[in-house]
Amino acid sequence: MSASRQVLLAHGNGGRLMRELIDELFARHLGNPQLDTHADAVTLAWPNPELVVTTDGFTVQPLEFPGGDIGSLAVHGTVNDLAVALATPVYLALNVFIEEGFDLDRLDRIVASLARAARECGVRVVAGDTKVVPRGQGGGLYLATTGIGRRARALHLRLDRIAPGDRILVSGPLGDHGIAVLLAREEFGLSGELVSDAAPVLGLTQALAPLPGLRFMRDPTRGGLATVAHEIAHARGVEVRLRESSIPVRPAVRGACEMLGYDPLYLACEGRVVAVVAPQDADAALAAWRALPEGREAAILGRVLEGRPRVVLETELGGERLLDELEDDPLPRIC
Amino acid sequence: MSASRQVLLAHGNGGRLMRELIDELFARHLGNPQLDTHADAVTLAWPNPELVVTTDGFTVQPLEFPGGDIGSLAVHGTVNDLAVALATPVYLALNVFIEEGFDLDRLDRIVASLARAARECGVRVVAGDTKVVPRGQGGGLYLATTGIGRRARALHLRLDRIAPGDRILVSGPLGDHGIAVLLAREEFGLSGELVSDAAPVLGLTQALAPLPGLRFMRDPTRGGLATVAHEIAHARGVEVRLRESSIPVRPAVRGACEMLGYDPLYLACEGRVVAVVAPQDADAALAAWRALPEGREAAILGRVLEGRPRVVLETELGGERLLDELEDDPLPRIC
Repeated sequence: MSASRQVLLAHGNGGRLMRELIDELFARHLGNPQLDTHADAVTLAWPNPELVVTTDGFTVQPLEFPGGDIGSLAVHGTVNDLAVALATPVYLALNVFIEEGFDLDRLDRIVASLARAARECGVRVVAGDTKVVPRGQGGGLYLATTGIGRRARALHLRLDRIAPGDRILVSGPLGDHGIAVLLAREEFGLSGELVSDAAPVLGLTQALAPLPGLRFMRDPTRGGLATVAHEIAHARGVEVRLRESSIPVRPAVRGACEMLGYDPLYLACEGRVVAVVAPQDADAALAAWRALPEGREAAILGRVLEGRPRVVLETELGGERLLDELEDDPLPRIC
Repeated sequence: MSASRQVLLAHGNGGRLMRELIDELFARHLGNPQLDTHADAVTLAWPNPELVVTTDGFTVQPLEFPGGDIGSLAVHGTVNDLAVALATPVYLALNVFIEEGFDLDRLDRIVASLARAARECGVRVVAGDTKVVPRGQGGGLYLATTGIGRRARALHLRLDRIAPGDRILVSGPLGDHGIAVLLAREEFGLSGELVSDAAPVLGLTQALAPLPGLRFMRDPTRGGLATVAHEIAHARGVEVRLRESSIPVRPAVRGACEMLGYDPLYLACEGRVVAVVAPQDADAALAAWRALPEGREAAILGRVLEGRPRVVLETELGGERLLDELEDDPLPRIC
């Protein structure tokens, strides 16, 4: 690398330092037979009749948090968007925006983590680009990843497959990622035992794929479960009813939410799946998830009804509360 | 849109404002039958045996400059990386990082420009993501685009096809983009008639595709012609000789460079192509380019020789000068 242990503007100029950064840091971790760091574009064999494409930006703060970092999160977030479409991730393109002055050892650590997550998910980074932005214009590190996958089976999951009577399931407790990231911020001065749920959901989504009654899946990231529920309600003009007593939330998440004034229904998860399933397959879906270590705490927590497009929470006390669409941002830079 | 005419943090939170921003601004400009703004991932038919993939980040400052803006530049930059690999652009994935407080009308203008450039290049935006970063952590607007193309012909252009004796051509004058962006910065208080060369190079690259002696093409963006020459010299262990008197540079660019202390050989172009061609095809390549409006000022400006890996400039005065690899960044945020 260079004598300085910080990223300089010159690391982004196309010259010697940029070549060294790419060869000695990025290619060292991410190298694979298909990554040619000297090519403008890469040519890849594609023996499949379809592509599944997704893209995502990552701005999480802090960049490293209990259970993950922006590098592994970028892989998991992108892989999970393919997984809920029942696609198998194959290739990843990576964009890196680095703020001048960023610590090179930290960059190395994050890229190593990204590479490890990619290997674990069976996806290869085949194209990349780095930009360095001047100090005070970058927030440390931002990533953008584009995932290309192939479909495992010819099943199109779409919001418009959802019908009244369908059941809504979640694969595990809500809000772990949001609260873990939040508590990792210095201003809170808190440290809990809480760990982000960030992880690939490929096993969870494939477990439901054989069910004929599977309608739709989504990973409840920004805006959380409540936002997925609103998407369903608006897209289909239906009422979504959630049963508070069935919603899995860890005591530590619930406690942090009460103390800080957040609602776990709106908090981001990065390793959970929300699935909508026809009523006759709901129990089978629940059993399929609970048979997996990452689905042990899965629950059936709601249903779709004919009615006005709205989201209703049946509270533990037997009342009802309308869940609003998210307005203010409770937690910027959570993903 | 919303009552406020600025981007708020809440525009990035996954809730109502984000949905409105995506539906009413991005989807309005970028809408096409394959863009489903409510899907995690999009499924696309792909009746081709290969993919060509490229990815690029954009941080240009100012965001709007004579001859383009960050939106059209993102399309042209990505399309051009596919074009120099002799691929036809088909799909684009778009990531947008917006700084809190960004003017919504300006965002609208830039997305409209991006959409226009995409239509002109025949490429469709099929996936996208937006993030809003807090004020003071964003530099206004950053974009990342991933392009997916199909190969027009089964010809792999690679640096290792280059051999001693080959000629080096450029499709037009150097440095227009770099200087146009630089002069558009407020701190210079200058305004020239100079316009960026940012444009698609698909016509230029396709014009050379039939030549059997075509070895390699690259668009000289960050680091300019000198950096492409260094890549060739290092990758092949050859000497690259450039003839200063043959290098096309507009008088206005030359004047600005002299005044401000820049070397046009290191300045970014965004609509030019550098081609390496076997000697027997060099005249045919030049003629093919000059027959195009965007290649009228093309020139043969150098050659590849056996020797040490270095880049030599034969000066107009009959001397020789070694061109160093770019070290300091002369112009951050140029692309």
